[in-house]
Formats: sequence, structure tokens, C-alpha cells
Amino acid sequence: MDKVERFLVQRVTEEGRRETEELVTRELPLTIIINEHELTTLLCSPDKLDYLAIGFLFSEGLISHKDEIKKVLVDDRRGVVRVETTEKRDFKDETPFKRLITSGCGAGSFYRAADMQNMTEVTSQIQISPVEVFARVREFQHHSETFKATGGVHSAALCDNENILLFADDIGRHNAIDKIFGECILKDIPTDDRIIITSGRIPSEILLKVAKRRIPIIISVSAPTDLGVKLAANSGITLIGFVRGKRMNVYTNAWRVKTS
Amino acid sequence: MDKVERFLVQRVTEEGRRETEELVTRELPLTIIINEHELTTLLCSPDKLDYLAIGFLFSEGLISHKDEIKKVLVDDRRGVVRVETTEKRDFKDETPFKRLITSGCGAGSFYRAADMQNMTEVTSQIQISPVEVFARVREFQHHSETFKATGGVHSAALCDNENILLFADDIGRHNAIDKIFGECILKDIPTDDRIIITSGRIPSEILLKVAKRRIPIIISVSAPTDLGVKLAANSGITLIGFVRGKRMNVYTNAWRVKTS
Repeated sequence: MDKVERFLVQRVTEEGRRETEELVTRELPLTIIINEHELTTLLCSPDKLDYLAIGFLFSEGLISHKDEIKKVLVDDRRGVVRVETTEKRDFKDETPFKRLITSGCGAGSFYRAADMQNMTEVTSQIQISPVEVFARVREFQHHSETFKATGGVHSAALCDNENILLFADDIGRHNAIDKIFGECILKDIPTDDRIIITSGRIPSEILLKVAKRRIPIIISVSAPTDLGVKLAANSGITLIGFVRGKRMNVYTNAWRVKTS
Repeated sequence: MDKVERFLVQRVTEEGRRETEELVTRELPLTIIINEHELTTLLCSPDKLDYLAIGFLFSEGLISHKDEIKKVLVDDRRGVVRVETTEKRDFKDETPFKRLITSGCGAGSFYRAADMQNMTEVTSQIQISPVEVFARVREFQHHSETFKATGGVHSAALCDNENILLFADDIGRHNAIDKIFGECILKDIPTDDRIIITSGRIPSEILLKVAKRRIPIIISVSAPTDLGVKLAANSGITLIGFVRGKRMNVYTNAWRVKTS
């Protein structure tokens, strides 16, 4: 399914107007059904729907390992992903988001005070140099063709010090990260000593998502919130924000940023 | 409650690093309780919490008029707004967001296929000139001090052709719009022939929110999604996007944009 659609728009300036074709990013309502139980509907960009569904279920704590997944069926025309688990668990009482509606673009995360208290510290000893941060962010920013065409999506990437390993984009920044995590789960790609880059801001719920996968470094070209910073500090995660050209802010656990 | 907090961060360049103070935007988990029923918790910026709660309840279709509100009690330290309605209605079965998790920053909207089908057409005959659009957007962009300080919030404004009437910002673009609508409801400010400006993208759920208040023109400095454009077309709303300097795209109902 195409991620963009052409629309006829009027391009207006003070001098006049003319009709022109514009690419507009597509938005798909995607319903996730788990063991015959309709769990939720996300608004998302129409690709990597299997990764998105699995990443979302992981972020919500409804599955924790690939072995629990028996089948993933994607119907992208109807906007449905059906997930069957190996164990015949009943998800009827699961209502993600009933309690908390997130500030973030995209799926958001089912967020409880308990989430913050039960976080185990991320202890990975990896480090990254400023030169590596600037280089990975530059690659990241060149990566998103959809964004360049339509200005309408957020991107996320999983990297190590030398390379971008996985890339995803979505109208929701949460979805972009869940697509990355879903792909990691389905393809057994480890995340322990890796780095997440996001085009979006870092509020608490993005931080919780990344902490759940025990990722030691999160990098954003944008700003964190105070709760994002506090959660990163408490969970041992290095939060790097406002990466602009060859400048950045390290908000927490700066020991992972090597001195040049 | 302050909307920003100071953090000590490391400013890192290729040449070296130094400690510096940075302003970081604050994020408050706000629980909305209606008639003793805990409805939901939003992540938001900590101001105009009464407006946010009332705007949210309106957008969710749980209240439709100021007369239905008996009392609004804000406890900004604990992050709670208690709303009491005049009629002793029980909201126990209301679970906003159970079905659909939105792509947007902020509160999002409880979104159903029915929402789209039941939309009545916005018939306001107001028009706006390109010069007025460019001037209002310029004022709008100068308005948000928080954004300039921290890069962490979205803004929304209600205007007429000549002036910005109301302004709000929030870490969630939905919240910013709900703060505007809540203020309109509590202060009896009409919205029928008015204009909404948003700093964020325009996906379907933002469009539904604006349609619910029968606002004829929505302007964004950013991009819409295809569903946003289709809903605007079907509901008689003029959608203007990508306003950059003295250029803009009119996606739908371009007759409301006057020829210069």
C-alpha cells in the first residue's frame, strides 16, 4: 500500500494561485486483534503493519518474547492485523490506554506510576563519541524519503556506533519506534547495546518504551520533557537531545559520551 | 505551576564539552475525574488545566454545553481535575480511547467510523485573504515563548481575520486545541465563523475535533494526512497547510480563500 497519495491543491501566494499536485502522507486506521479479541485501533502509516502490531503488543506488556507468537496475519486493505499467541490466553480484560492518554504522536504507551517504579536500571557499558553521534544523525536525517516528500512523518532508527541497522517512519513517533521494536522481536535482532534515534520529542512515554527494551542511549534531534529527563536519569539511560549539526545536549548519564 | 524547569546539561561539540543550564518543558500527568468516575489521564503541559479538561470532555462528546457543567475543581499539584455535571449522569461505562489510539501528539480523540459519517457540513460563509493568512500565522509563530525557549511544545490559536483571540500551548497538539475549546465553552466565546491555527500536522482526529466545533477554516504551518484532507473536503472545512512565509497550500474548499 502506498505511503503517499497525490492531491490537487491550490498553491497560493500574494501574487496569485495555481493548481498543483502535492504528495500527502497516508493515514491508516489499523485494528489489532489478539486471540479473537479486538484490542485497539491505531492511526498509522500503512507499512510494516506486522512489526507495528508486535512492537505495540510488546510495549504494552502483552507479549514479551517471540516464542509467544504463533501467527501474525496482516490484511492491509481492511487495516487489520490478527495475532495469535501460542498459549490460549484471553485478552478480553486488556484495555490499553484506558487510564492514560499520552502526549505523543502515535501509539503512545500504557503508562502507570508502577511503570516508573519497576524500571530496572540499564547497565550497558557502551559508549559513543560525539563524532559518531553527529554522523549517525546526519545519516538518519537523509534516510526518510517520505518525510522529505510530504513533511508528514516521524522517523526512528536502531543503530550501533558505526551504522544505522533498522529504520522506520510513521505519522506517529510512537509507531515508528514500535515498528523498529517489532522488527527486532520478529527477526531476533538484539537491542541491548544499541542506540535509538528519533525525530520526535522525548516525553516520558517514549523513554519508558525504550527502557523496556533496555536500550542504553536515545538520541533526538528535538527536545525532551522534564519527565523524560528524570526517567532517563533514574533508569541509567543516556539521553541526548537537540542534535543540530555538530552540537548536542547530553541530559543524563553523560559518561556514555566519550571525550573526543 | 511553571511550564519549564531548569536542568544542568552537557553541551557537547567536536571540540569539547561544558556544563550549561537548559530550560526543559514540563510534562504533567493530569487525571480527569467526572462525577466521581476516574475517566482518564492525559500527559500535558501544566497550565489551563480547567480548559483542557472541559475541552477534552467536549471533544469526546461527554459534554456538549456549558450548562451541563456544575463545578470544575483543579488540583494542579496532584494533577487532578474534578468535573461535576448538573445532571447526575454516571460516566462509568465511558472509556475514551479504548477502540482507537490516535497518531497525534496529545489527547487525541475518541474516533469512530460513525464520527465521519455523522459529520454535518460546516456552512459558514466567511472568507480570508492570503495576506490575512500570512499575517495571522506570523503573529502565531511569534506568540509561543515556551516553544522558543525549549522547542518542546505545540501551539494552537483561535482567530478571526484581523486578530488572534485565544492562544494555548502544550506538549500535545490535541491538548493545545482542547485548551482553546475549553476556554471557548467556559467563557461563552463563539467559534462558528472563526479560524484555528495549529503548529502541528493535521491528521483525521484533529480535523474531527475542529469539525465538532463547526470551525470553517483550519490553518497549519505543517502537513495534513490524506484522511485529514478527505474529512475536510467532506465536511465543508477549508484546510490550509504548509504556510511558509508568503506561500501556502489550500487543500480543500478553496473558495474561502479570497483572490487578492
